[in-house]
Amino acid sequence: MAKDDFQSIHDYGLPLFKEDIAEYTGAKRDEISTGLGDDSSVLEAGDGMAVTTSSEIFLEGVHFDLTYTPFHHLGYKMVTAAVSDIYAMNAEPVLLHLNVAAPNKYSVQMLKNLYKGIDAACKDYNVELAGTDVTASHQILVLSATATGLGNKSSIVRQSGAKQDHIICVTGDLGAAIAGLRVLLREKSAWKESGQDHFQPDLGDYEYVVQRQLVPKARQDLLKGFTQAGIIPSSMTDITRGVVNDLQRIGKQSEMGIEIYSPALPISYEVRNVADEMQEDVDKYAFYGGEDFEMAFTIREEEVEKLKADFDDFSVIGKMVAKEKQFIINTGEDRKIKFDLFET
Amino acid sequence: MAKDDFQSIHDYGLPLFKEDIAEYTGAKRDEISTGLGDDSSVLEAGDGMAVTTSSEIFLEGVHFDLTYTPFHHLGYKMVTAAVSDIYAMNAEPVLLHLNVAAPNKYSVQMLKNLYKGIDAACKDYNVELAGTDVTASHQILVLSATATGLGNKSSIVRQSGAKQDHIICVTGDLGAAIAGLRVLLREKSAWKESGQDHFQPDLGDYEYVVQRQLVPKARQDLLKGFTQAGIIPSSMTDITRGVVNDLQRIGKQSEMGIEIYSPALPISYEVRNVADEMQEDVDKYAFYGGEDFEMAFTIREEEVEKLKADFDDFSVIGKMVAKEKQFIINTGEDRKIKFDLFET
Repeated sequence: MAKDDFQSIHDYGLPLFKEDIAEYTGAKRDEISTGLGDDSSVLEAGDGMAVTTSSEIFLEGVHFDLTYTPFHHLGYKMVTAAVSDIYAMNAEPVLLHLNVAAPNKYSVQMLKNLYKGIDAACKDYNVELAGTDVTASHQILVLSATATGLGNKSSIVRQSGAKQDHIICVTGDLGAAIAGLRVLLREKSAWKESGQDHFQPDLGDYEYVVQRQLVPKARQDLLKGFTQAGIIPSSMTDITRGVVNDLQRIGKQSEMGIEIYSPALPISYEVRNVADEMQEDVDKYAFYGGEDFEMAFTIREEEVEKLKADFDDFSVIGKMVAKEKQFIINTGEDRKIKFDLFET
Repeated sequence: MAKDDFQSIHDYGLPLFKEDIAEYTGAKRDEISTGLGDDSSVLEAGDGMAVTTSSEIFLEGVHFDLTYTPFHHLGYKMVTAAVSDIYAMNAEPVLLHLNVAAPNKYSVQMLKNLYKGIDAACKDYNVELAGTDVTASHQILVLSATATGLGNKSSIVRQSGAKQDHIICVTGDLGAAIAGLRVLLREKSAWKESGQDHFQPDLGDYEYVVQRQLVPKARQDLLKGFTQAGIIPSSMTDITRGVVNDLQRIGKQSEMGIEIYSPALPISYEVRNVADEMQEDVDKYAFYGGEDFEMAFTIREEEVEKLKADFDDFSVIGKMVAKEKQFIINTGEDRKIKFDLFET
């Protein structure tokens, strides 16, 4: 046993630990065409159908903060996070299993509001809540959400399919969720300093970014666009850890390099305003901000105009390049930032 | 809004809360033939195939105690719990999603042992670990496990199919997991009183019951027996909350009464010994002890002998009766305990 194994888990580092455990996959099953590493697993059922599954766990104080998150919004967001991983496979989410472990400090009303948010999101995404359990917790609220989707085996999109010269696109705009978080955290500090009992932040000017943080929407509409345009993207993922990190996974899985042109990143003026106020670099919000739940995907060059006819809320931000080129961020000022894609 | 809604969740009661939220099912989907309320949900995919899904959440200090649970066993047990719900639908578990939220107090070695236990169980049950994520937690270890199974639409078994005069059977023996827990808790108290650093209980005489608590096995073999005997039970569930509670759900879902003959309950001598030592009623262990992961099922009378030819590790404990008879426990001493099945 390596000496490292006695280190505590976070000192050792979760990314390294995840690599270590990649060998523990249990039995290999022929029906499973995608296991660990993509947005969802893919199980090939009969009749050319593929069943995609994605599961997540959310802890109070780690993944969400109930100081500024209404229960209804929290429920909605958990569903968004779950179904977004199914859309990222170009599949349709059909059912959700959602479990709650609740401490006694929360009231029936609060938890009903959580379920109302779950219900509203399930209706918006046309998903049935087909399993739910409520159990006890001593201190924190814990949620787990598992979404199951259906697709045709032939139209499932994996992170591994991008080829050289494919165009990298992203939907909507980036960095809004992190901008919203910055605003909420600032208001939370101000509230703590004020010594007041209730947290009633004035968020009028920041409505767009705060909504993007609290109740993000998954990009169901992109899939409809693909279907109408008759396009199957060569790779896709949802943007949950920042577009740089998410594209990095596409690069790794596809064994390709990535070049993005940073002036092309779609950033809303609301996000620019927040970054200005915070005296921070807005590009960093767009590059590394998580939880936007926008989609990043690659298509062939001739498909860009074709898709626009049916769905136009996307931007071209770069292209797939040779593996040796690694990950290049072209800033448009004759400066290129290059980093090693295949090192962790 | 009812005044009750301002009560804290556990004062209000989880069973009542679960009834309240039963309306929040999101969108209704035609593909889903079983939603909330059974051991697993059932999604009808193409080609007569059914996809069954079951998901659970486990918290340190609520669902498991790391004082006496080795990480390897914990991993194994989580997988058992997940696949057992798939077997309970008469389906074959195929893939598992298992997420871990780990606090920094645990070492890499401990968490690798957790994964080794998961891996070993997945291999025993022929299941692929097709998704796993490791995330941070501040204080307690949290696990979520979702199992996905495949079956033929026509051979899926629900809790709702039991008919009058169908014979109620259980596999193996009952009450062993709770007996094991009693022993472990007694050893834990003794250890705390001793003031020693390490917990090294002497469990020699209690090996059977302690193993049944720490590393229970799901009854994969029963399903093979059904297949060989050409039997599809009319209802089935796994025994996780005590056979009385689990049969109660079959009664409710099937809208039938239940009569069980308590001297017929299979109880091992090891369990009797523990109950004697603890000066407790062994029948209570068998009736209400959870986590045995045995199976309770109903079959037609003529199928009992037929099944025995291929699988004989089961006992006949009673039969389904008219709904009006509610739930009768016949003690065999001319005494019947009767309780209302349809009240919660």
